[in-house]
Amino acid sequence: MSIGPRDPQVCDVLIEAGWVVPVVPRGVVLADHAVAVRDGAVIGIHPIAEARELYLPAEHVKRPDAALIPGLINAHTHNPMTLMRGVADDLPLMTWLNDHIWPIEGRIIGTDMVADGVTLAIAEMLRGGTTTCNENYFFPDVQAQVYKRHGFRAVVGLPVIDFPTAWAKDDDEYFDKARQVHDQWLGDPLIGTAFAPHAPYTVKDSSFERMAMLAEQLDIPVHCHVHETQGEVDDAMSATGLRPLARLDRLGVVSERLIAVHMTAVNDADIALCADKGVSVVHCPESNLKLASGFCPVARLQEAGINIAIGTDGAASNNDLDMFGEMRTAALLAKAVAGDATALQAGDALYAATMGGALAMGLAERVGSIECGKRADLVCVDLGALETQPIYHVLSQLVYSTGRQHVTDVWIDGVAKLRSRVLVDMDLDAIVANARSWGARISNA
Amino acid sequence: MSIGPRDPQVCDVLIEAGWVVPVVPRGVVLADHAVAVRDGAVIGIHPIAEARELYLPAEHVKRPDAALIPGLINAHTHNPMTLMRGVADDLPLMTWLNDHIWPIEGRIIGTDMVADGVTLAIAEMLRGGTTTCNENYFFPDVQAQVYKRHGFRAVVGLPVIDFPTAWAKDDDEYFDKARQVHDQWLGDPLIGTAFAPHAPYTVKDSSFERMAMLAEQLDIPVHCHVHETQGEVDDAMSATGLRPLARLDRLGVVSERLIAVHMTAVNDADIALCADKGVSVVHCPESNLKLASGFCPVARLQEAGINIAIGTDGAASNNDLDMFGEMRTAALLAKAVAGDATALQAGDALYAATMGGALAMGLAERVGSIECGKRADLVCVDLGALETQPIYHVLSQLVYSTGRQHVTDVWIDGVAKLRSRVLVDMDLDAIVANARSWGARISNA
Repeated sequence: MSIGPRDPQVCDVLIEAGWVVPVVPRGVVLADHAVAVRDGAVIGIHPIAEARELYLPAEHVKRPDAALIPGLINAHTHNPMTLMRGVADDLPLMTWLNDHIWPIEGRIIGTDMVADGVTLAIAEMLRGGTTTCNENYFFPDVQAQVYKRHGFRAVVGLPVIDFPTAWAKDDDEYFDKARQVHDQWLGDPLIGTAFAPHAPYTVKDSSFERMAMLAEQLDIPVHCHVHETQGEVDDAMSATGLRPLARLDRLGVVSERLIAVHMTAVNDADIALCADKGVSVVHCPESNLKLASGFCPVARLQEAGINIAIGTDGAASNNDLDMFGEMRTAALLAKAVAGDATALQAGDALYAATMGGALAMGLAERVGSIECGKRADLVCVDLGALETQPIYHVLSQLVYSTGRQHVTDVWIDGVAKLRSRVLVDMDLDAIVANARSWGARISNA
Repeated sequence: MSIGPRDPQVCDVLIEAGWVVPVVPRGVVLADHAVAVRDGAVIGIHPIAEARELYLPAEHVKRPDAALIPGLINAHTHNPMTLMRGVADDLPLMTWLNDHIWPIEGRIIGTDMVADGVTLAIAEMLRGGTTTCNENYFFPDVQAQVYKRHGFRAVVGLPVIDFPTAWAKDDDEYFDKARQVHDQWLGDPLIGTAFAPHAPYTVKDSSFERMAMLAEQLDIPVHCHVHETQGEVDDAMSATGLRPLARLDRLGVVSERLIAVHMTAVNDADIALCADKGVSVVHCPESNLKLASGFCPVARLQEAGINIAIGTDGAASNNDLDMFGEMRTAALLAKAVAGDATALQAGDALYAATMGGALAMGLAERVGSIECGKRADLVCVDLGALETQPIYHVLSQLVYSTGRQHVTDVWIDGVAKLRSRVLVDMDLDAIVANARSWGARISNA
């Protein structure tokens, strides 16, 4: 493949790789190709020899043993919770929430905790090849500042929930603050916003209606936990006679703006509704397993033509932000759930973890694939390690044999964030020390 | 905890760690402890300060940020297949076997392939903290030599199958060769043997009966794929009216010698039988998912008191030999399968991946835990990485947040095999080059 200029020209970075995996077109693997980047955008994809003729790069990166892939997109995170990684495992959901997570959050939640948790998360995501996240937590104003400061691409969720929290005291304050944060970051090249109603069972009808209207007006997504467990669906049926998705549909929330997270408890009508309305589903397989939430029928959603993205969920229920691990678990689990070893193939899993997320978050024009004109969110993955030998199929190796530790280099918007596994502009030791200090504070609280 | 001598004495290695996780007693984590090793055995476990007074070590290893755990035991592998890693993914089981794996094996199987595949596997296992494996492939004579040469602990399977293979032409030859390999390695400190009948559907009654008798006489385990899929059980019911396990029981194979691998399709009677007879089950969660075989009901087996071990299966159906990943998948999956977030807790998963394997393989007197008198199969796992911060519970971090890349040091029988992530006596580059050469040969064949 050769896409880009035909005459020699300058570029900021030329990245040569043993394989370029553009994700779009699907399934394509380009051996010995190079990607040229200028002003933060991809401007060309060519065979290496041709690229060397065509460009005068300010920086020339050569990774003959690596695959160059689009940055991974973590489509559902609660990144400040990284500070609570492993604080309460192997517990029933309600014990976990009521006796551990909520009391701890009650004591520590605030701007410091959010800023420090997001910083730890950014470092972890960069070291694991993730370049974009769909954030869902309180204090989106603080999150946005931290993501921006570190040059990380994020859509921050604007919380809406029926009870007072450290972020807002009532409906009007939730919506006022949402609007403020949205307006403040409008047009930013890295930071976007989405409404983040917590879940159908914690947000009232009038708030969903107000949000549906505003989301349309502001042209932003609605990012919501939906049908996370069968219990959620059963409770809603008992209380209202409606499945949560059907209720959301009546309230105008079910549309191509909806990012429906989890979706383990779905029937044919739910699937038909989501397919019909263009809903995106974020599959969080490891969280669903660890909290015993259930199994998302990914193959059935895919057959119905529903866009699938992948998320890690928070580090308190995973316990990592490892999108390589999550892709792999998604690809493995989908097969057993479908009873079909051909379900969610390696290329499908990689697509979900990149373009799927970009489509869900309304970023598909900018990121999710390596294409001319898109922003240069790029990741080099070393396939030279002993653990990935021999190499028969690059997509298989990327999904089934590679780990996040094989990520060597990361660029966001054309800016190097990780070079040969070293964080370019973050102080790893200081972040670790700060995380430990939070750990001590949380343990002793 | 302080177990060991009370007077100063020499030792070969003293390993200090931030945490020692002995596995036995279950759930115990010893902060700032040291383990002393002499003549390949653990001779003491003490608080660090005390250990420094008690020992004059020839070598003193200090790992304040690491957990020291028993070497992981991979209780079901087909290690020569590491050369076929990723050669045919995302395919239905029968297409995978008939159109890919078996034709490739037909072309390449032999002593060279077995030796080189096992060598690649040993390097991968060492780098991932695995110190013992339960091998199941052809040419156990070659495997044994390679494991012995590299100082790796293994039980090699003595194949029995109803059709001719490159290893043997008929029943008598399978049994004769089994006996030869067994006798050759009898009493070896690192290498053991087990019968390895392929599966109930490929081994006739008379062979199982002969094997049951011989296994008793030779005092070795019987390592067999059992109830891997519901299809296997259904076919057996149609053909014989008996479930495979019930048939094996009639033939005398169901006993505490039996290592039953997979066991996804089990009913209450199967579970009661296994519990009653003391069968060990090897859970291979990632293989079961990837091949869409089904879900092993680990929590139910555990409740019945059945010993659970963990295996990766072959790298052609996984696609790695990563016991950290397998522990994690086992712990996550068991919860969703049981519908209970408290199922297979972190400590249970680590127990299964160490003592569970040792018990299954008849090695519990020698390995599987860090106890005085046991062989020193030890692994240092760095918990200082950013990805494992903060640390609230060491067992949680080991299972839910740590990856095989965090393994820094490995000893088998007291001999250092990995130091600061460098293989002590294996040539990594040569192994990678050789794997690539096999890859080219297999691709072009």
